[in-house]
Amino acid sequence: QWMMLDWKPRRPDILIDPFGLGKIVQDGLVFRQNFSIRSYEIGADRTASIETLMNHLQETALNHVKTAGLLGDGFGSTPEMCKKNLIWVVTKMQVLVDRYPTWGDVVQVDTWVAASGKNGMRRDWLVRDCKTGDILTRASSVWVMMNKVTRRLSKLPDEVRLEIGPYFVDSPPVVDEDNRKLPKLDENTAEYIRAGLTPKWSDLDVNQHVNNVKYIGWILESAPILETHELSSMTLEYRRECGKDSVLQSLTAVSAGSDGGEVVDFGPVECQHLLRLEGGAEIVKARTEWRPKHVNGLGSLGQLPAESG
Amino acid sequence: QWMMLDWKPRRPDILIDPFGLGKIVQDGLVFRQNFSIRSYEIGADRTASIETLMNHLQETALNHVKTAGLLGDGFGSTPEMCKKNLIWVVTKMQVLVDRYPTWGDVVQVDTWVAASGKNGMRRDWLVRDCKTGDILTRASSVWVMMNKVTRRLSKLPDEVRLEIGPYFVDSPPVVDEDNRKLPKLDENTAEYIRAGLTPKWSDLDVNQHVNNVKYIGWILESAPILETHELSSMTLEYRRECGKDSVLQSLTAVSAGSDGGEVVDFGPVECQHLLRLEGGAEIVKARTEWRPKHVNGLGSLGQLPAESG
Repeated sequence: QWMMLDWKPRRPDILIDPFGLGKIVQDGLVFRQNFSIRSYEIGADRTASIETLMNHLQETALNHVKTAGLLGDGFGSTPEMCKKNLIWVVTKMQVLVDRYPTWGDVVQVDTWVAASGKNGMRRDWLVRDCKTGDILTRASSVWVMMNKVTRRLSKLPDEVRLEIGPYFVDSPPVVDEDNRKLPKLDENTAEYIRAGLTPKWSDLDVNQHVNNVKYIGWILESAPILETHELSSMTLEYRRECGKDSVLQSLTAVSAGSDGGEVVDFGPVECQHLLRLEGGAEIVKARTEWRPKHVNGLGSLGQLPAESG
Repeated sequence: QWMMLDWKPRRPDILIDPFGLGKIVQDGLVFRQNFSIRSYEIGADRTASIETLMNHLQETALNHVKTAGLLGDGFGSTPEMCKKNLIWVVTKMQVLVDRYPTWGDVVQVDTWVAASGKNGMRRDWLVRDCKTGDILTRASSVWVMMNKVTRRLSKLPDEVRLEIGPYFVDSPPVVDEDNRKLPKLDENTAEYIRAGLTPKWSDLDVNQHVNNVKYIGWILESAPILETHELSSMTLEYRRECGKDSVLQSLTAVSAGSDGGEVVDFGPVECQHLLRLEGGAEIVKARTEWRPKHVNGLGSLGQLPAESG
């Protein structure tokens, strides 16, 4: 179903987007932007980090709103939202990563929006390798509105619906919704805990709140398998915001693919995560799935050549 | 002296660099690359962070080597350096920031190399606002070679000099060298100490070492003035590398513009920094200078209009 967008050779598109700032395609409903992966966006594995991918998703979402002429405040809110003191907050995010690009690769990010229930908006992304057309990443997210003064969630006002409704695409999510309940995690059920996490000044966004992408780094930080496995999928549920004076704990439980808490070096691993305030309030709950790094690129075959075992 | 490069309108250049990967200009001796500042590269002030600027410097340095056809190992070493197990390590970096760009701005980074003493190489950068031609940032750095097996510094071998010598520019540094000695800082002389800093997996580069740019975040983290002041200049001396199991302390002393350790909210501030291992070994020493944020953009006038005071 996420095949709705035909793959076409990229060169002509790039030439009419010399600044790399993106443009509207597909009858005005899909926004497309290319990113060249930079040396500082790759990690010890020489591949782009998940934070880099999430940053590219954020950037295209904002540029989509900007290019549509709907950027009221300069950071994602439409003019009608600004009048009513409303901002977007993300409540759920699902990401599937088939392959991580490396330095010098050019990725093409497509993004579009759709209705989500009565008061929400869904935003999907499809990331392709520009050279081969291979799909690298699919992501789907749900957003609702919050009053930035009262910090309470808001219904979608009719005036805002009139602004954004014409951009809604009528298509199913690019990622099948993962409705499995995220189990409750605490210091007894978590196997790995990293405490005393504090936002740096540079972690804050223009709303003086910790940027959504920063949470992911903290969540993964308590995962015991960063060196042997790579993230293949992630479901995040955002519960509340946190600011610069928050002190956080990152809890992880390994729920599959492990042997009594000991992670097995081959085969996939599933983890449950909770990022919470030291006082206990939940910030983000998450489920992550991991595949061993040595089958990178062969993952979809499900088996290894004998000499690599 | 750093005016050696004439400013010309950028549009034609951009059109022949559609991927934004940069190109050689100026008789083959200067490498130029444009960067569009992305939403995730700006902070709470809506301006690019110093880490973002440093990342752009790193990226152009690597792309310069790559474009010159001298990228032996894919990460900065030339073919002759690879044969001899040599890598580049930075020993000193000076950065002057006149103005920080914001989201959507396009900056043009020029970089070139020169000899530094008998065994070193200097690399300079000049960053301009693409639209106005204003100089935003000047930076100069000194690099030497290290044997990556023995981790000892090496002389510049003749074979490597033959490779890189033809690219050396004969011009003075873009930043006057700051030869003032960085004072020795310890727990008694530092006013602000942040201890227990540990690299995350994502802080490591492809050599499994903490990336040079990451140090800067840790150094600035103990500066007490991030909310009121912006960094105007920085001198860094790199003393030794650190890896993923290091535990670091960041020490800061406010040496000017303060009133007995209390920072004054108006007027410039100078700080001394030390990043060290918990065992005491020095990683990076630094001096930073800061200007109040409310004179941002008027800094070079040296005074404020009466109504802004």
